[in-house]
Amino acid sequence: MNRQNRPGTLMIIGGGEDRTDTKTVLQTFLTLAGGMDQPLAIITAASTVPDKVWDMYRHAFADLGATNVTHVRISCRGDADDPALAQQMAASGGIFMTGGDQKRLLATIGGTRVEQAMRQAYSHRGACIAGTSAGASAMCTHMLAEGRAELAPEKGAARLGAGLGFVSRVVIDQHFSQRHRINRLLSVIAQSPFLLGAGIDEDTALIIHGCALIEVIGDGSVTVVDCRAAHSNMLDLRPGEVPEMIDVRVHVLPSGSAFSSVPEDERPACVAEKARAAPPPIAEFIQYLTDWNLES
Amino acid sequence: MNRQNRPGTLMIIGGGEDRTDTKTVLQTFLTLAGGMDQPLAIITAASTVPDKVWDMYRHAFADLGATNVTHVRISCRGDADDPALAQQMAASGGIFMTGGDQKRLLATIGGTRVEQAMRQAYSHRGACIAGTSAGASAMCTHMLAEGRAELAPEKGAARLGAGLGFVSRVVIDQHFSQRHRINRLLSVIAQSPFLLGAGIDEDTALIIHGCALIEVIGDGSVTVVDCRAAHSNMLDLRPGEVPEMIDVRVHVLPSGSAFSSVPEDERPACVAEKARAAPPPIAEFIQYLTDWNLES
Repeated sequence: MNRQNRPGTLMIIGGGEDRTDTKTVLQTFLTLAGGMDQPLAIITAASTVPDKVWDMYRHAFADLGATNVTHVRISCRGDADDPALAQQMAASGGIFMTGGDQKRLLATIGGTRVEQAMRQAYSHRGACIAGTSAGASAMCTHMLAEGRAELAPEKGAARLGAGLGFVSRVVIDQHFSQRHRINRLLSVIAQSPFLLGAGIDEDTALIIHGCALIEVIGDGSVTVVDCRAAHSNMLDLRPGEVPEMIDVRVHVLPSGSAFSSVPEDERPACVAEKARAAPPPIAEFIQYLTDWNLES
Repeated sequence: MNRQNRPGTLMIIGGGEDRTDTKTVLQTFLTLAGGMDQPLAIITAASTVPDKVWDMYRHAFADLGATNVTHVRISCRGDADDPALAQQMAASGGIFMTGGDQKRLLATIGGTRVEQAMRQAYSHRGACIAGTSAGASAMCTHMLAEGRAELAPEKGAARLGAGLGFVSRVVIDQHFSQRHRINRLLSVIAQSPFLLGAGIDEDTALIIHGCALIEVIGDGSVTVVDCRAAHSNMLDLRPGEVPEMIDVRVHVLPSGSAFSSVPEDERPACVAEKARAAPPPIAEFIQYLTDWNLES
């Protein structure tokens, strides 16, 4: 599947997005989904209190003028295989996965008709697929499932699980600066240096447009971690030991950053002026973010 | 002044070193100072409660068997210009600067006979000069004096002041992982990318031997931050804004790391087997740490 067949947009949100005041991130989701009257689906399956979470988003989107918002309330895999629900979701302009536990989310919707409907909405309908907190982690093929590494990277500190695969070569972490998660992300990436890591701050979104354009919006930053050229002794360590790591590359992309790896004259007019030409490390990050195979 | 004239050792300690249990860091200081009977001087001038701090170290060093420990109690620049005190300190095997406030320490001893005596002890006597917490920050020519940047690097978040100059091209930060100071250090280094940054964890020391050998001991790690090849928009920002930073290089050196940039057959026998050959980024770090001019 090439870029031209993926007209959709991904919004990877670091959790804690404002829902009562400026609502910058949610407003952007609404815009990317096509506007106030488009059908939107809110998936609360990551949460153990889905009705409470739905209530919060219902109010927030109503405040923003959205008129067609549905709570996708899934409590078991049977719910997620409902053909009528899947058909409805495939017609959505925007699908939003809330926070909770990414393992719960994947165990519930992974491989179901609802998951397939998300891909259809994204690929064929041009929908915006958004996930916040657990919903952000779930976007990856290799999902940061759980783990702690507070004071230093540690061998085995964090576990990967199977995610949704909207982003295949980048591991996402969320609540990144607020929960001081750089060591947790480094622990994962040092073990799998062929992947890149991206840490998303709270009330902040990394947006991946279909046209090789990425953009950071909201209150914080996106931190990219690259161990591809790093030397570490991770393989020689026992679990819990701290690796030596030399030559980790880090990029900090604050809100407002926008980069495209496509030459300016090949970009759609609407974004041509928005983005700067990506310098090589960011062009590679874009390639890692977009180099997926949604049909696998 | 070349390396052969600097037989002393530097111990840069990240604060919070154990003083009641294993005392690994303090025991190493005692060894590097020449052993239990060598004259040791404890400078408490960074602290507003010097007698309390002295009491703590007096007990800790007594427990370790040290027999000749002096409290250098300096409360004003006049005290620090006392020729008899300076003469005594120049004959020390080890000089230890405690925590407190690095600005207070420098305002009290900077440019005085006591400071000159520290250089003499280091250069001519081969003393070990150690500093913990504020005492660690004070080691640098460009001293990280104060500042906060918790969730992201920020323009102007931290201030440099004039330090003692035992390390001239590296800015030290302490309590590094415990107080999540990577953004504070990045804020400084992004503004002055011709310097390197080194963050020292609590109960951890970076030891700089005279023979281009560095070593990390204790409980945590040393994190090196290198923005020399990074691109940032720091110059275009207003104070408090978050810079875009691309291609920051980071190295994590856990306890036990030891590197030399001198070929094995040129190293003193005692350290020849201790250290590995430093890979290029660490050899450069060693050069930045040792490339000083103590007479300037």
